Amino acid sequence: MLQIGPYSFQSRLLLGTGKFPDAQTQNQAIEISESEILTFAVRKLPLNNPDAPNFLESIDLERFHLLPNTAGAKTAEEAVRIARLAHQSGLCHMIKVEVIGDDRTLLPDPIETLRACEQLLEDGMIVLPYTSDDVVLARRLQELGVHAIMPAGSPIGSGMGLLNPLHLSFIIEQATVPVILDAGIGGPADAALAMELGADGVLLNTAVSGAQDPVKMALAMKYAVMSGRMGFEAGRISKRPYATASSPESGIPV
Amino acid sequence: MLQIGPYSFQSRLLLGTGKFPDAQTQNQAIEISESEILTFAVRKLPLNNPDAPNFLESIDLERFHLLPNTAGAKTAEEAVRIARLAHQSGLCHMIKVEVIGDDRTLLPDPIETLRACEQLLEDGMIVLPYTSDDVVLARRLQELGVHAIMPAGSPIGSGMGLLNPLHLSFIIEQATVPVILDAGIGGPADAALAMELGADGVLLNTAVSGAQDPVKMALAMKYAVMSGRMGFEAGRISKRPYATASSPESGIPV
Amino acid sequence: MLQIGPYSFQSRLLLGTGKFPDAQTQNQAIEISESEILTFAVRKLPLNNPDAPNFLESIDLERFHLLPNTAGAKTAEEAVRIARLAHQSGLCHMIKVEVIGDDRTLLPDPIETLRACEQLLEDGMIVLPYTSDDVVLARRLQELGVHAIMPAGSPIGSGMGLLNPLHLSFIIEQATVPVILDAGIGGPADAALAMELGADGVLLNTAVSGAQDPVKMALAMKYAVMSGRMGFEAGRISKRPYATASSPESGIPV
Amino acid sequence: MLQIGPYSFQSRLLLGTGKFPDAQTQNQAIEISESEILTFAVRKLPLNNPDAPNFLESIDLERFHLLPNTAGAKTAEEAVRIARLAHQSGLCHMIKVEVIGDDRTLLPDPIETLRACEQLLEDGMIVLPYTSDDVVLARRLQELGVHAIMPAGSPIGSGMGLLNPLHLSFIIEQATVPVILDAGIGGPADAALAMELGADGVLLNTAVSGAQDPVKMALAMKYAVMSGRMGFEAGRISKRPYATASSPESGIPV
Repeated sequence: MLQIGPYSFQSRLLLGTGKFPDAQTQNQAIEISESEILTFAVRKLPLNNPDAPNFLESIDLERFHLLPNTAGAKTAEEAVRIARLAHQSGLCHMIKVEVIGDDRTLLPDPIETLRACEQLLEDGMIVLPYTSDDVVLARRLQELGVHAIMPAGSPIGSGMGLLNPLHLSFIIEQATVPVILDAGIGGPADAALAMELGADGVLLNTAVSGAQDPVKMALAMKYAVMSGRMGFEAGRISKRPYATASSPESGIPV
Repeated sequence: MLQIGPYSFQSRLLLGTGKFPDAQTQNQAIEISESEILTFAVRKLPLNNPDAPNFLESIDLERFHLLPNTAGAKTAEEAVRIARLAHQSGLCHMIKVEVIGDDRTLLPDPIETLRACEQLLEDGMIVLPYTSDDVVLARRLQELGVHAIMPAGSPIGSGMGLLNPLHLSFIIEQATVPVILDAGIGGPADAALAMELGADGVLLNTAVSGAQDPVKMALAMKYAVMSGRMGFEAGRISKRPYATASSPESGIPV
Repeated sequence: MLQIGPYSFQSRLLLGTGKFPDAQTQNQAIEISESEILTFAVRKLPLNNPDAPNFLESIDLERFHLLPNTAGAKTAEEAVRIARLAHQSGLCHMIKVEVIGDDRTLLPDPIETLRACEQLLEDGMIVLPYTSDDVVLARRLQELGVHAIMPAGSPIGSGMGLLNPLHLSFIIEQATVPVILDAGIGGPADAALAMELGADGVLLNTAVSGAQDPVKMALAMKYAVMSGRMGFEAGRISKRPYATASSPESGIPV
Repeated sequence: MLQIGPYSFQSRLLLGTGKFPDAQTQNQAIEISESEILTFAVRKLPLNNPDAPNFLESIDLERFHLLPNTAGAKTAEEAVRIARLAHQSGLCHMIKVEVIGDDRTLLPDPIETLRACEQLLEDGMIVLPYTSDDVVLARRLQELGVHAIMPAGSPIGSGMGLLNPLHLSFIIEQATVPVILDAGIGGPADAALAMELGADGVLLNTAVSGAQDPVKMALAMKYAVMSGRMGFEAGRISKRPYATASSPESGIPV
């Protein structure tokens, strides 16, 4: 069970809803992934024009928890404003704080992220910050009271997987809240690795929506997250450079 | 469907039967893995002492294909003798040719492996050689007529995963028979990666039998292989070092 | 030429002075490395006991720039106090700001590091912060006015080299001040790689002082830094997975 | 000192002569690299047309050992014929045996390479085979009597460096003749790494001839090979994931 603030989830796969080829594919992918948490950019919603079409219309809101993000924000103030807009609309209690500090890599600004989280926690929201894999920053966010840490594996949409598995392990070791690997997943092996290292969940979007067959990839990711989690729980063998025979020499002489 | 010679299999996970803590754990792991092909060392069987206990007694032979290996052989002659022993016992038509050329790494001897395969193919057996990730050697074996290529990811039992994913990809690209990653798998992410790169199957043993919870790890590996295969079929996104936003900036100005 | 604030240096190798087996070995290593900047912990100096022995006595202070660090500080206040102590002693104008946020990894605290730098820049010191490889944090420090950025390759003394070469490249691309790879160097290849990626310098200590032959390793590192820098300036070939013949087939038919 | 058969060399950098922009750049690069062994394809020489221009004319043959290679050969017979042509021309006693088994990767054919070496050793030549990083094949070649082993780091001209450092280490550990890393070097860090792992030499070509400034890159490679070798001899620190302070906390309380 993944526990984020007061909420419990069976699935450890969080799915983003951006850039699917069409709404039907998106909904099939969501369905087959068995994700219970969907993320999307608040900026994409026509909140001030209730009659405009938007992706939420096609979602059964009873079945999913929404995790809107503050994509587009470059300062704490912008992130807080976007988060409050989402909160006040009644859509959600959870918010993914995303304050981008660099346009090429879309990596987060640590200072503005900390400030935004501080304010939104005071507002009483369930706060999940997107962060780099800076080990001490992750602990700082945790000490602030955030409800999960969401370190980047590699730049958003890059498909480069986990650039620094050791940093992710360090963050996990010291974590007192869930660690959800966010950004950079390319294929199932990346998701499995994050989970195998002890992450509590994986958030991904482009890896599914940008695949040639998004629905099949969504299913692949469901199994990848399950397998990685089980592998973590099952206690994998340690690495050693030399061989150990799996077929001991015994029995008949040949 | 994995097709090896005349046989078809639903499962792409091949499981070794060495070094489980006890027979019950082994059988539960086999069961939950849904593997259809089990490997074991012919040398471990008391073929010349039919009354001695052996692991085959606890296996429902109707349900599994046996893939005995020639572990212990250091020359083609030894491997051929071991293979024929297994074949003549009526246990199997398939043989995993394993001719070790180095005691520390248990890496295979390319020349002896080629020679053993040549003879066993003449015998009419279904021949699956364990090989290094030498790209041209893999093609040579294939040209000889072997029924699958089984390149090592890393030394047997090392848990180091895929040391050279590019070589595995090269072997897969040119393969006209199934490529089954054999040796070195440590955790589910390794198995998922091999499959994601296009391998047709994964053979592993220590990763499951040596895990703290072998049964749970067997299940993890089942899902890992499934997820990697689906990921391969679904066509993953390509890698690029820079970010691409999954949440395009549009909608309301905030 | 490496330019840090008002100072110019021929050498791009900065050497730490901790943990050498003895003073003579240390001095020989310093000599042969041709380093012009030496680092040490202010805390190791008996500043309030001028008669106690200390390593500076054996150094020809005319020939080297000293770069004391604030090791031991866990807050901005502590770092500032240590830095001022060093500055007031007349030993140095440069200070390496090191505010540790995690005892196991000795990774830096981004917030306290920023705060300490801000104050020391106001004091008029030449400030070189030790930082993680957080890309946006590096730019924030730069915008504050620091005179160089010193990202960690991996934990201090770990010898794990560059865990995340891509992040280092990102930091270098956006840098307007020198980027000096600090911490984690294990062998010459690590130092060469940092320089090849475009770093302006490398600071290392344990890799030399902890080697079996520190003096020879100091010379190795001198050449590694030179080779990496030249490689960067010479414009290396790009990577591609397939081969291109270096020996075109032409000339005589054979 | 690098010892190959009866010859001793100060330099551990072997330089290929293919694909330089012009003869002057090539000669300057050779000069500055301080290489003592130059490689080239026999096929590129107009051996049956002595009046045609060729690169050897501009080389001071007194100062260099020539290591012609059998590039273009796809069988042992072709390689032997090319090697004898070179030998009989009086140009060389050493030959790099290169029998390509795959056009896309230019990776060598293990069987044909073995056969060619066997024949050329009988001819009395000094034989240096280009091989994959197959550990047992390397030992087989060594047992045959070859005078050095030349494993590929990655495909020729790919610039991908060492794809499998562990296999290179295995080859080095068991070697009784020099191991010269051949093919795949991209930048100085790759060359330094091969040497740091214990290789006796590095052969490269495209990394220098294809660089934007081949002459400067040749110098970079000279230093890279020196630094890696010294690093190997100096005994580098081992890797460990956690930090160890290079600045012990002692001295004054601050």
